[in-house]
Amino acid sequence: MNYERIILGIDPGTNVMGYGLLGITGKKPEMIVMGVIKLGKLGDHYLRLRRIHERVTQIVTTYLPDELAIEAPFFGKNVQSMLKLGRAQGVAMAAALARDIPVKEYPPLSVKQSITGSGAASKEQVANMLRHLLDIPKEKMPDLLDATDALAVALTHFYETGKPQIASGPKSWADFLAKNPDRLAKRQTPL
Amino acid sequence: MNYERIILGIDPGTNVMGYGLLGITGKKPEMIVMGVIKLGKLGDHYLRLRRIHERVTQIVTTYLPDELAIEAPFFGKNVQSMLKLGRAQGVAMAAALARDIPVKEYPPLSVKQSITGSGAASKEQVANMLRHLLDIPKEKMPDLLDATDALAVALTHFYETGKPQIASGPKSWADFLAKNPDRLAKRQTPL
Repeated sequence: MNYERIILGIDPGTNVMGYGLLGITGKKPEMIVMGVIKLGKLGDHYLRLRRIHERVTQIVTTYLPDELAIEAPFFGKNVQSMLKLGRAQGVAMAAALARDIPVKEYPPLSVKQSITGSGAASKEQVANMLRHLLDIPKEKMPDLLDATDALAVALTHFYETGKPQIASGPKSWADFLAKNPDRLAKRQTPL
Repeated sequence: MNYERIILGIDPGTNVMGYGLLGITGKKPEMIVMGVIKLGKLGDHYLRLRRIHERVTQIVTTYLPDELAIEAPFFGKNVQSMLKLGRAQGVAMAAALARDIPVKEYPPLSVKQSITGSGAASKEQVANMLRHLLDIPKEKMPDLLDATDALAVALTHFYETGKPQIASGPKSWADFLAKNPDRLAKRQTPL
């Protein structure tokens, strides 16, 4: 592994947490690894939080990612489930923040939009598009779609951070006209 | 410091996080230290989460508490604030869980009830009662009531874990009467 930049994507949940690592060389993104942390069999809420923190710490110390991208909804069904989701995100973020890794979050809709072009895409459509975009052999695709969602948020982060900044465009009409005098329609002389 | 047991109490928030350490010798609880982690000046949400994780890790490695008690509401105003609160709790819990420290949470009402006898007590009443219960000199009481709330949840945890178990009491009326035959009122013989 000799990438210029490594992005860790995480799709946190209290039952299953997905992760995906993306290595960047030049402008080319490549899948390093993806997988899931299964939490369903751990009955206790704190055991689950501990497992998430342990595994993310392990991933961070093994692959040394430069950035962490998290898929995070802005609104949820109820306050109780949002509190639990917040905790799951928190213990995962702590593993990255403790090692100076910056965190960025993306809502699920932006991830779907960025990968497939449609915010209404299914998890399967996201997975298929990812396989196409990253040239992943079919046998390397895990069955669990939480892992592909995590890789999708890492790729979204790569696309978003590689975009040209809007700030480099014209700031106002006056600025635009000053830079593009030929685009100004000549005043019509009356007939 | 040579306590049999040390309890760390935390009152998490996204603006101020309070902490309080309680040392137990025999059945006597004693305040070791209390304070607040101020987050208001850290604009960025992730910087706040990182600061909470760092400081709680520091407290845990300095004082080596045996247990962590957290004041945690079960319901909040809205999903957005509950997600943020969950993250703050998560990064604090991660610091303890990573060191095998068990976590227990108490709703604010139980803490007030346990310390003052009333679930409707104000923060000031909780602080005054704490000062009385733990013999804290007035000059040692910090101005910030988030610290006393954190110490209050640690003391609540001490009270709750020291309670006799209800299971050891009688299981039913029949059981009670079998164990206490003298408590059975004799049937009155009619006049």
